Amino acid sequence: MNSLEDIVSLCKRRGYIFPGSDVYGGMAGTWDFGPLGVALKKKIMDKWWKFFVEDREDIYGVDAAILMNPKTWEASGHTATFSDPLVECKSCHGRFRADKLADGITESVTTDAFKALNVKCPTCGKSDWGEIRQFNMMFSTHVGAVLPDDEAGDEGARERAKKSIAYLRPETAQGIFTNYKNVVDTIYPDMPFGIAQQGKAFRNEISPRDFILRDRECSQMEIEYFVHPGTWEENFEKILKLQHEFLEGEMGLDSSKIHEYEVPAEDRAHYSKRTVDIEFDYPNGKEELMGVAYRTDFDLMNIAKASGKNMEYRDKNTGETYVPHVIEPSIGVERLILAVLSCAYAEDEVGGSKRVVLRLPEDLAPYRFCVSPLLKNKPELVEKAHEVYAALRAKYGNVTWDDSGNIGKRYRKQDEIGTPKCVVIDFDTLEDGTVTVRDRDTAEQVRVQPEEL
Amino acid sequence: MNSLEDIVSLCKRRGYIFPGSDVYGGMAGTWDFGPLGVALKKKIMDKWWKFFVEDREDIYGVDAAILMNPKTWEASGHTATFSDPLVECKSCHGRFRADKLADGITESVTTDAFKALNVKCPTCGKSDWGEIRQFNMMFSTHVGAVLPDDEAGDEGARERAKKSIAYLRPETAQGIFTNYKNVVDTIYPDMPFGIAQQGKAFRNEISPRDFILRDRECSQMEIEYFVHPGTWEENFEKILKLQHEFLEGEMGLDSSKIHEYEVPAEDRAHYSKRTVDIEFDYPNGKEELMGVAYRTDFDLMNIAKASGKNMEYRDKNTGETYVPHVIEPSIGVERLILAVLSCAYAEDEVGGSKRVVLRLPEDLAPYRFCVSPLLKNKPELVEKAHEVYAALRAKYGNVTWDDSGNIGKRYRKQDEIGTPKCVVIDFDTLEDGTVTVRDRDTAEQVRVQPEEL
Repeated sequence: MNSLEDIVSLCKRRGYIFPGSDVYGGMAGTWDFGPLGVALKKKIMDKWWKFFVEDREDIYGVDAAILMNPKTWEASGHTATFSDPLVECKSCHGRFRADKLADGITESVTTDAFKALNVKCPTCGKSDWGEIRQFNMMFSTHVGAVLPDDEAGDEGARERAKKSIAYLRPETAQGIFTNYKNVVDTIYPDMPFGIAQQGKAFRNEISPRDFILRDRECSQMEIEYFVHPGTWEENFEKILKLQHEFLEGEMGLDSSKIHEYEVPAEDRAHYSKRTVDIEFDYPNGKEELMGVAYRTDFDLMNIAKASGKNMEYRDKNTGETYVPHVIEPSIGVERLILAVLSCAYAEDEVGGSKRVVLRLPEDLAPYRFCVSPLLKNKPELVEKAHEVYAALRAKYGNVTWDDSGNIGKRYRKQDEIGTPKCVVIDFDTLEDGTVTVRDRDTAEQVRVQPEEL
Repeated sequence: MNSLEDIVSLCKRRGYIFPGSDVYGGMAGTWDFGPLGVALKKKIMDKWWKFFVEDREDIYGVDAAILMNPKTWEASGHTATFSDPLVECKSCHGRFRADKLADGITESVTTDAFKALNVKCPTCGKSDWGEIRQFNMMFSTHVGAVLPDDEAGDEGARERAKKSIAYLRPETAQGIFTNYKNVVDTIYPDMPFGIAQQGKAFRNEISPRDFILRDRECSQMEIEYFVHPGTWEENFEKILKLQHEFLEGEMGLDSSKIHEYEVPAEDRAHYSKRTVDIEFDYPNGKEELMGVAYRTDFDLMNIAKASGKNMEYRDKNTGETYVPHVIEPSIGVERLILAVLSCAYAEDEVGGSKRVVLRLPEDLAPYRFCVSPLLKNKPELVEKAHEVYAALRAKYGNVTWDDSGNIGKRYRKQDEIGTPKCVVIDFDTLEDGTVTVRDRDTAEQVRVQPEEL
């Protein structure tokens, strides 16, 4: 098992993932995808969309705004309960998650119990703590014409400023639930049916950490699958099985690293009657990759109450009306990318020297082929190489060109990038037309005619 | 020319675009894409990415975080100048853009000049105005453990809260500029080269309006094209020409509705030596669809100053070092979607009755075919229709099924959705295997064997 640091380092070195706002010294909890990272991310998101939406007849897509009416988060419970216990060191004003400062402390720790532990401040070393307070993890902003000094203004100004508060959505799920009625009214799908969304979600983590595993800004891919209440168990099994097909079949994740965790009743959200976490063996340990939750009619009923709108579905054949129950598979794109990179990253030896290699599945690798002339200063090789390059680009699209350094260095570079095949045009090519094709995983070389690629 | 309201109405009726947070009475300036809208949006964004990034060897993609280090916006000038003149009615506390309240008022109007106009408040009708103040259109938030009462706390708390302020990016461009050095350091592309990004941007418009034309949350597609300073003019022409190829060739926009506007020197940003707006004849008038701007080395030099990092590029062949100059084509996805919808929307007569039809290009339409049995209650027709449906889905993917209402209503519905061909299985199909194929644009029907589709 390689370390998370090795993967972080490779990602930065090769243009997969950079720290966010790197040039300005960073922005904690944000990450920028470079040219290779955005190619990988797009392939992963497109495959998910094709697998769950385009190739299916029962799942419809939506793309809701990130800024939503704040009633959304009152109804969903996020305004009241989407929070972490925050404690401040009175000496240095450092703020921390109380439940992360010592082993065995839980989210519901009281101030007295916490103080009794005599935990030292990680910043200044003192043990002079304030009260534990609930810190809501939603990023808030003001929508509309609110000026910076309104909050220090008279009561009327403060009141108007307060009314303009909105949040960056902390999950994409509510953008689906709030559009359930729109979809039923315009499309009226047969039951069961799902609504899917891909998009950004934001969580103001007190201490972002572990690379892209616990970031403040992430991309989610979620489906709310609406079912007749009497059929939730069979639909839960169906949806759960589909996740494995996607993760193992489409993403090529190593099934031995994937584990189902049946969340016990006492750890589930109060409205959920079943939740299965799909955990993955990341380099820094087993962590949640995604979850499948049976959310009952909790969300639609909350929306019905808060909006006064009817959320019932009427069966086209039987005429039965009911509020559907929901199975929700939810996955974070960054967690999935890190799982893919973790499976791909390897260090081995080739011809007696060590190398790093990214064994990405062929259809996820940013480039399928890299084409090179053996020597850069031989015009006849370069010309022939350009011919082969143009032909492969026309056929496959994602083909790269590399004439930097010597051929050994190019192989190492493409190994790290994860390019499955390097195609080299050498002096034999000028004789018999064959090119050298070197395999990323085995480092074996064969000679073939370019048309055979 | 049809009205914007007609398009808004169709979009809502058929599941293209809904008002954001509709179920809660909306959220001004936000819009949610429904099942058909997200299909159209994805096709448009994917075609742009393929045309400008994947099919080109000189443009690389990035995907930067929305939350960026606030130094970004100091260096770019947004913190100081990205603002609108705001005026408050002292009577009803309504707030408005001063330059929108009366004809001929410009953004730089003074309070005295404004008051002298005796403009009436659009809300309460009085004319009792406060001072004009600059309202920064960036949405701000706090990143990190800031509590709601910090801003009303002691000086230390207020100071710490202030330091945590960050903004939702008002443009994707700076996510590219801040990654310029990362791309050069990891990929080291030959000059000229571009970096492209697609993603969300946010502007706190005082009065969002005109459907998706002036919203608070939009998606942008931008390229910063880096060139040797001596070559900017030829590269400007090249990039401008590419935009027309994309808009007319790939998006199928009617070229007679597209106009170039050479922005005169006095209206350009101070750093820009040339800007061409590409305007489009929207239903509510001519409006900017996109722009191409020559931004000189303004952004890279600002970043160099603010970060202390070297932004020079070293030519691989000549060894010359210089800070590249930049040509920027920038387009808003929603503006492009509305242009596509505007070209497609039509009202005409078919068989003596009026209809609405969306003449989308075949490769942008959410569905390529709609398959129907002529009658829903004839099992032999339904069975055969399912066969044809399955075969077309296997071949094309984006094929829909419709057995609702009668055949005439289905045609009207698919016309509004913009489905190019309706395929109907009728009693003749059972005899000779042929199906009826009905054309969206001409309403003509032909009989063909399903394999010919």
